[in-house]
Amino acid sequence: MPEFFNVYSPPDAWRHFLRHYSPQMRTERILTAAALDRVLAEELVSPQDLPEFPRSTVDGYAVSAADTYGASSSLPAFLSVAGEVPMGQASSLEIGVGEAALVHTGGMIPAGADSVVMVENTQRVDDASIEALRPVAVGENVIQVGEDIRTGDPILKSGHLLRPQDIGGLMALGITQVTVAVPPRVGILSTGDEVVPPDQPVAPGQVRDINSYSLAALVTRAGGAPITYGIIPDNRAALEAAAAQAHAENDIVVLSAGSSVSYRDLSVEVIAGLGKPGILVHGLSVRPGKPTIIAVCDGVPVFGLPGNPVSAMVIFDLMVAPAIRAALGAQARPKQQVQARLARNLASAAGREDYVQVRLEERDGETWAVPVLGKSNLIYTLVHADGAVQIPLDSGGLRERAWVTVYLH
Amino acid sequence: MPEFFNVYSPPDAWRHFLRHYSPQMRTERILTAAALDRVLAEELVSPQDLPEFPRSTVDGYAVSAADTYGASSSLPAFLSVAGEVPMGQASSLEIGVGEAALVHTGGMIPAGADSVVMVENTQRVDDASIEALRPVAVGENVIQVGEDIRTGDPILKSGHLLRPQDIGGLMALGITQVTVAVPPRVGILSTGDEVVPPDQPVAPGQVRDINSYSLAALVTRAGGAPITYGIIPDNRAALEAAAAQAHAENDIVVLSAGSSVSYRDLSVEVIAGLGKPGILVHGLSVRPGKPTIIAVCDGVPVFGLPGNPVSAMVIFDLMVAPAIRAALGAQARPKQQVQARLARNLASAAGREDYVQVRLEERDGETWAVPVLGKSNLIYTLVHADGAVQIPLDSGGLRERAWVTVYLH
Repeated sequence: MPEFFNVYSPPDAWRHFLRHYSPQMRTERILTAAALDRVLAEELVSPQDLPEFPRSTVDGYAVSAADTYGASSSLPAFLSVAGEVPMGQASSLEIGVGEAALVHTGGMIPAGADSVVMVENTQRVDDASIEALRPVAVGENVIQVGEDIRTGDPILKSGHLLRPQDIGGLMALGITQVTVAVPPRVGILSTGDEVVPPDQPVAPGQVRDINSYSLAALVTRAGGAPITYGIIPDNRAALEAAAAQAHAENDIVVLSAGSSVSYRDLSVEVIAGLGKPGILVHGLSVRPGKPTIIAVCDGVPVFGLPGNPVSAMVIFDLMVAPAIRAALGAQARPKQQVQARLARNLASAAGREDYVQVRLEERDGETWAVPVLGKSNLIYTLVHADGAVQIPLDSGGLRERAWVTVYLH
Repeated sequence: MPEFFNVYSPPDAWRHFLRHYSPQMRTERILTAAALDRVLAEELVSPQDLPEFPRSTVDGYAVSAADTYGASSSLPAFLSVAGEVPMGQASSLEIGVGEAALVHTGGMIPAGADSVVMVENTQRVDDASIEALRPVAVGENVIQVGEDIRTGDPILKSGHLLRPQDIGGLMALGITQVTVAVPPRVGILSTGDEVVPPDQPVAPGQVRDINSYSLAALVTRAGGAPITYGIIPDNRAALEAAAAQAHAENDIVVLSAGSSVSYRDLSVEVIAGLGKPGILVHGLSVRPGKPTIIAVCDGVPVFGLPGNPVSAMVIFDLMVAPAIRAALGAQARPKQQVQARLARNLASAAGREDYVQVRLEERDGETWAVPVLGKSNLIYTLVHADGAVQIPLDSGGLRERAWVTVYLH
């Protein structure tokens, strides 16, 4: 079997994957107050007008605007004060011609009034009367019924990631529970006879497990629930058993394979045996990250990631994180990014996407992206980087001083 | 007392605040595997070289490079195979002149070898010998001892927000526990006689509490631990008692005040009574958000935020989130941002920072920032926005089609 038999560009690979993946979303009902950063799984429309009564936006006097027309400091409009609107209550006042009612910010506009003169633009005459020193227009300094949102207006779409202001907006309407997507379970397997758990002593020739932990954290960040299966010994029976268990227990499976050709061949065979249609993509035209396997096995996406940590993270961002968002039914959101000037020329081969790790530096008030040199099998290449710059498929490279988009880690 | 007596620009207000605030950071020791998005509270240096032994980056034959000089397909270098390096073990092999050892990706380079010939560039002669078809240089296809990181090299600084790759990098070194900052407790008080809890029926003249919930979510996002004190009735004794309790129990206190002048005056007096030096800033040259109070009372920052939700969020981002990061000892990170074209002219007064809520739209492959019109007392202005555009202090406004930075919510 040739080592790579089904090489795709990342966008083509993603489309090919989507043709074979039908996410089975699970939902749950939770308190809105606890729904920060969860993905909404229902369409919400407003059950009411907001506000439900006309409110003043200032401290002042609720009036009929017509009574103030032509008012000025030299010729003020005389108004008799019918009373004060109490906060948090409906006012029983009814404002007649030539009358005004004291109202506070947020207070209800009483019947008969259509606008509010700011207190700064009035002058007290006596206990029962004021002078308006400026005219107001109809509706001035008033939030109308339904001006914030109206009954039946769409609020938020299914797939929306709930932010602080969304929680506030739902609370304003008394929507104290919401239906959200349950985080998909993502099973993570590491392989390699040289890999040992980080809390155990290492002997010469051994290395500590990195990917189980960095991948689990990436799954959490993407909105999934990571389940780690530890380090699987490098033999067919052990890997088949562990992969079958992870496949049965999870919505998505990620294998971080040993990096030698024999490990990779074993991963291919084990993944292919997990179900239909099996392996869709074997090899991505991206650097780092070429030795990637993408499969759907009896409805469960299975990703075979390159063993080295930089490649694993690049491919996670390109393929696994979007698959987790698809499982959540989440709308696409712009990635965290900053614009920066490139600190040196970067070469690339056309027909391949490159991801170059960079660190950000401020120089003379501009942000610069400084490529972090280092092999993709070095974890500290990533630790020393703030983000990555993409060199597109059709580009031969990027010039020093060019403005580039840095996708932050 | 004049309503605003101490108006600052946001940068000046922040500097003035910092002169009076000395964060008292608390730390705790936790598992590195559970430290995602926590703030590191120690300087870490590498306790060892990584890797601790030279490793192969390919599948191939470990050799002494000198034995391959001049090798080609027509004139290969003949090498006798001394054995195979087992994965995860130190090899007892010692490679002499004219010898090679089979090694897998990640395997240890045996003594006497200084480079690896890729298996693709060799040809098997018999069980005990191969031909190298290309020369290799000293160090080729080898990760040297300490090439990833060396003993004593700085790893991460105190104040660093731990990302997935940082967790991987620490695990690689066997650093399975870290000291991190304890999230500061942030007490949140809402006031206003018209405000009722969202899960209760509202009568005419009443509105549901928004800010307790959106502020709590903002505190969580900023890395703090929100503690809500509910809705405080609008009288001096109740507000004084609640503020004193929150001041005693928290690292930072946030009051979301009723929006009328009398409420604001009451907030000023209650905050001023909480301790020394008291109110530092009363009024910010920013729209929305002018009626902001910034105080430090016996070491505890106290923020009086405007009652309307848009202003409260703008000021939270400008002042409270940075105060939480200061309490965590966290390094500044670039804000989430995207570049977009402005969809219409925006006017502004010089001498004032403006924050305009925008939603993002894709048009012809470009991202546009479309201002969301709506009064700053409307929560759905925020719900319909993806982010905000800043119009700087010294600017008279921004032109349609200009490229702007949108800070994402």
